[in-house]
Amino acid sequence: MPGRNHKKIPTPLNQQPLADFKVGVDNVIFSVDTAQNRLLVLLVMRQQEPFLNYWSLPGTLVRQGESLEDAAYRIMAEKIRVNNLYLEQLYTFGGPNRDPREATDSYGVRYLSVSYFALVRFEEAELIADKVAGIAWYPVKQVPQLAFDHNQLLTYGHRRLRNKLEYSPVAFEVLPEMFTLNDLYQLYTTVLGENFSDYSNFRARLLKLGFLCDTGVKVSRGAGRPASLYKFDAEAFAPFKDKPLVFI
Amino acid sequence: MPGRNHKKIPTPLNQQPLADFKVGVDNVIFSVDTAQNRLLVLLVMRQQEPFLNYWSLPGTLVRQGESLEDAAYRIMAEKIRVNNLYLEQLYTFGGPNRDPREATDSYGVRYLSVSYFALVRFEEAELIADKVAGIAWYPVKQVPQLAFDHNQLLTYGHRRLRNKLEYSPVAFEVLPEMFTLNDLYQLYTTVLGENFSDYSNFRARLLKLGFLCDTGVKVSRGAGRPASLYKFDAEAFAPFKDKPLVFI
Repeated sequence: MPGRNHKKIPTPLNQQPLADFKVGVDNVIFSVDTAQNRLLVLLVMRQQEPFLNYWSLPGTLVRQGESLEDAAYRIMAEKIRVNNLYLEQLYTFGGPNRDPREATDSYGVRYLSVSYFALVRFEEAELIADKVAGIAWYPVKQVPQLAFDHNQLLTYGHRRLRNKLEYSPVAFEVLPEMFTLNDLYQLYTTVLGENFSDYSNFRARLLKLGFLCDTGVKVSRGAGRPASLYKFDAEAFAPFKDKPLVFI
Repeated sequence: MPGRNHKKIPTPLNQQPLADFKVGVDNVIFSVDTAQNRLLVLLVMRQQEPFLNYWSLPGTLVRQGESLEDAAYRIMAEKIRVNNLYLEQLYTFGGPNRDPREATDSYGVRYLSVSYFALVRFEEAELIADKVAGIAWYPVKQVPQLAFDHNQLLTYGHRRLRNKLEYSPVAFEVLPEMFTLNDLYQLYTTVLGENFSDYSNFRARLLKLGFLCDTGVKVSRGAGRPASLYKFDAEAFAPFKDKPLVFI
């Protein structure tokens, strides 16, 4: 080959300029419709580009002076009225190229998303539709193609929910105060799928843990025998709070 | 009071301008010195302001075109040579005011930190000291005041490590291929503290799980009876991989 090789040597990554970011917060808010045994996720219809008119997880961009958690609570407060709220950080997706606004002919900065996970009691949660093109509790099984990488965020959130049901008493934050063992079983089946356990094993396991207390009240539903109503005994559970434990 | 009240009404947060961010990645890299039963964390001495000459978790700022995970692996590759590497995202700390560089008389942009968790085998890990003022495996119990909010990150990482020992077979990624039950017990005690379980309960529990296979080889150490060497049976564990399980 004639002449010197003028092939351009790529700049090593640690000598590239620093990336500039906007930071978004996206909430994966779950609820369980215990009457219909459906796991639901809160979606809003986007009313601006990109992804105009796509369903998306409720989110916002972090403002000056605002913490990530404050931003997550701000979204909640704008979309939903609820008494008890359990919110925890889920995962951070940082691209590059996860958001079309990152394109150099658009804003040219990176968009990072810190996602939060929430679980709310369906009967208590009241949606706020002000100034939103659409808001809905969507059955997780029927969620369409969402804006951005939100289907991936939802998958991640669903996995966290399953883990929490398996390792923590989070189910009792979603059920009414008094419930039958069958209500509890239906909740687990709704989230974990039909084949996670048969009812009699599940029942034996949960009773053996010693955190359920029989209220003495019985309830009749349909044709079967009256069923006992139970309560979660938070006091009995307290000593196990920080111990490794499997619920099912 | 005379005149009108001219008290300034604060701007609601959702009308504040968007915050601009640089994004850092900080790694909490643990190792266990099984010979001395010490839990160690990798620290580097900072050689620039802010926090000049403070120990800190190894970290970097994300470059243009670089993903968060790529940045986390880049730090690892710059500080340590290791064969097997387990890395997962830990938590995102987003302030505001977590970094002195955020001050308006400094750079004026926010500094967000996405932290990653790693666990490496002590005997295999080789530190790289090039161009670093200092690098050390620090016993977790003796860690000094670190730069930024890194003590908080470390606490978070330590909790994750405890959880992983309790719920997953991560211990076997740190132990040599063949180990005595006492080696395994020492490892758990080093991470979880002296009082997590007595040896005979621990031994019974681990053997009952059925994931340990006796190699038939015995080893003599000190004055006691020769002890059997065990291996982790990954094949026996495979069916339980995605099931809820408590190891200890």
